Amino acid sequence: MPIHIPENFFFGASSVKLKNWNKEDVGVIFSKTPAKAVGVFTTNKFLAAPVIVDKRNINNHIHFIIANSGIANACTGEKGIEDTYKIIKYVADKYKVSEKSILPSSTGIIGKRLPVEKIIKGIDNIKLGSSIESVKSFARSIMTTDTFPKIASKRFSYRGKKYSILGFAKGAGMIYPNMATMLSFILTDANLKKDEMRKMLKRSVEKSFNSITVDGDMSTNDTVILLSNGKNECVPSRIFYKYLEEIMIELAKMIVKDGEGATKFITINILNAPSKRLAKEIAMKVANSNLFKTAMFGEDANWGRIVSAIGSHKGKFYPEKIELFIGPYKLFQNMVPLNFDEKQVSKYLKNKEIEITIDMHQGKSKSTVWTCDLSYDYVKINADYRT
Amino acid sequence: MPIHIPENFFFGASSVKLKNWNKEDVGVIFSKTPAKAVGVFTTNKFLAAPVIVDKRNINNHIHFIIANSGIANACTGEKGIEDTYKIIKYVADKYKVSEKSILPSSTGIIGKRLPVEKIIKGIDNIKLGSSIESVKSFARSIMTTDTFPKIASKRFSYRGKKYSILGFAKGAGMIYPNMATMLSFILTDANLKKDEMRKMLKRSVEKSFNSITVDGDMSTNDTVILLSNGKNECVPSRIFYKYLEEIMIELAKMIVKDGEGATKFITINILNAPSKRLAKEIAMKVANSNLFKTAMFGEDANWGRIVSAIGSHKGKFYPEKIELFIGPYKLFQNMVPLNFDEKQVSKYLKNKEIEITIDMHQGKSKSTVWTCDLSYDYVKINADYRT
Repeated sequence: MPIHIPENFFFGASSVKLKNWNKEDVGVIFSKTPAKAVGVFTTNKFLAAPVIVDKRNINNHIHFIIANSGIANACTGEKGIEDTYKIIKYVADKYKVSEKSILPSSTGIIGKRLPVEKIIKGIDNIKLGSSIESVKSFARSIMTTDTFPKIASKRFSYRGKKYSILGFAKGAGMIYPNMATMLSFILTDANLKKDEMRKMLKRSVEKSFNSITVDGDMSTNDTVILLSNGKNECVPSRIFYKYLEEIMIELAKMIVKDGEGATKFITINILNAPSKRLAKEIAMKVANSNLFKTAMFGEDANWGRIVSAIGSHKGKFYPEKIELFIGPYKLFQNMVPLNFDEKQVSKYLKNKEIEITIDMHQGKSKSTVWTCDLSYDYVKINADYRT
Repeated sequence: MPIHIPENFFFGASSVKLKNWNKEDVGVIFSKTPAKAVGVFTTNKFLAAPVIVDKRNINNHIHFIIANSGIANACTGEKGIEDTYKIIKYVADKYKVSEKSILPSSTGIIGKRLPVEKIIKGIDNIKLGSSIESVKSFARSIMTTDTFPKIASKRFSYRGKKYSILGFAKGAGMIYPNMATMLSFILTDANLKKDEMRKMLKRSVEKSFNSITVDGDMSTNDTVILLSNGKNECVPSRIFYKYLEEIMIELAKMIVKDGEGATKFITINILNAPSKRLAKEIAMKVANSNLFKTAMFGEDANWGRIVSAIGSHKGKFYPEKIELFIGPYKLFQNMVPLNFDEKQVSKYLKNKEIEITIDMHQGKSKSTVWTCDLSYDYVKINADYRT
């Protein structure tokens, strides 16, 4: 897939060994023109220092995103916030921008302080550029136990002008050793209306990052930021939104595919539900069921676990109307299992990508969520921290 | 521990090979005097046939509990209900009691019909008795992948008369292959008031079976029944309740200790919470976190995962007041980790029984829940159904 780089954005990264491996761990995104910004942040009560600062700065025009991986700067108290401001102040002085135009972002070990001097040196070593390589270098700098960098982009025209959207993400699941967090940054050179940006980001997060689950846990650092730095006539949301959603769903799926120990990518579709909310909640009940996830790892057509997970939702619905499919095979209807071909279904479950469809036949709402299986390696990755 | 058998209760079991092993799988409890009964049942929408029948019969005077393991008679539709009634009719005719005085109970594979003739033959072969051996035999008959039978009992006096309470349970977690369900039967020869029984059972379930979690999944067959068959003056709940709660907590703890693949028994205490509900929900957030459970399996003092699980609760509380202890060691306070002795904590985590205490310092409510770790064997047991 080609990478489309929006105008007036520059990228760079360097390594100061915050992690145990030699790749980039400090990264910078620079918008030469001041960018409008909106963000969605973790609702965890133990907010990491960079998230606290982001929430203060997000309503200003933004020039910089400063990210690091290896240390989350979470559960570090007032000192952690001071550390973040020292880095911000350095960048503001160096590039002659306001401190309020900088959004910090961290991911990694909880409870550890940032080595401020090291990071500042790292930033000093960064050469900002707008090449494909500089984009990839930034994408690598936010990886923790991600096994591949996550980049998605689109290009589109509006009234004869071309625009780009470029998105980055890093993996979900709170990972060895204590690595936290889902981070995502979406950049565009299309000019957008601030109030529309806010609505679009919220809606798109709901359809993408809030529609995936690796292990149901939520980190102290989760952050999604959208920057718009264009100067042309505003692109209306009816044009822009679909590209934004496509990019964010692409990134969200990459996160699931790169989930801890994942061997299967599972799509759960709820059809004809009485409400959107119920559709999504039931999908999540199934997606977060350890029994379902281990069955998928075992390539076992264990429809009883899916039915039981659906039935455990406390909302009002008619179980007797529900039909359950694994792939194209209908397994359950009218409260009883059908005489399905076990061999065919077992064969289907050997695929890397599995689709579960739950047709509720009691409304017009639908929802799709993505998850992965629960494997030995999930336990291994998460248990073997100190061994 | 001695087993105390309440008067006028008789027990028996036999094997008709509903399971892959040779132990008892059909069990009967008989109360010679008609017993008052109350029950708490699963809220799963896909109610198993025996649960549907129990809900119809529970308000009558009860003479029999007829249980089987190996097949859950869940997702079997109208035919499943008919199967249950055939068995009930046979027992009613044989012992000359009303069909409405019989409570059926099943646990095992979902979606499979009961072999009615086989089970009736099994019941025919049962010799009811009131020996310790007959009690143990019944306890074995409701086991699925439980590794030990679960029995608890108490004896107490009221106004010069002696009474017994005897409780049975089988394991939680929905187990290989598709084995479902927590079942528990509590019997007493104390005469109790029906409305007090209802309140006591509900309250005690909340403190026992609803305060444990193995994997957060809920089955289609979960059932707790309390029978009181005494003829003497009623024992008031202020006397009876504490014994009931003790027995049910004992049984609940046995279920956790026998959880799938469990290597650690973990107690989570919430102290000084703003409300009972919040206390329990936060305890459950931690108890159901896969990241916490794998860390316990890895004997890893990963306090960040506990803090993050607490913080993910959406309720109103002050995170800055929270103190976190693992065993006697305080690890976290004022939003930051303390300088604890990692070696000491690591040593503590090698114990089979682990205690986590979360002191919220913002109220007077408390809650205790019990859980187990998430091990390779959990994945193995639940993934290897067909391999």
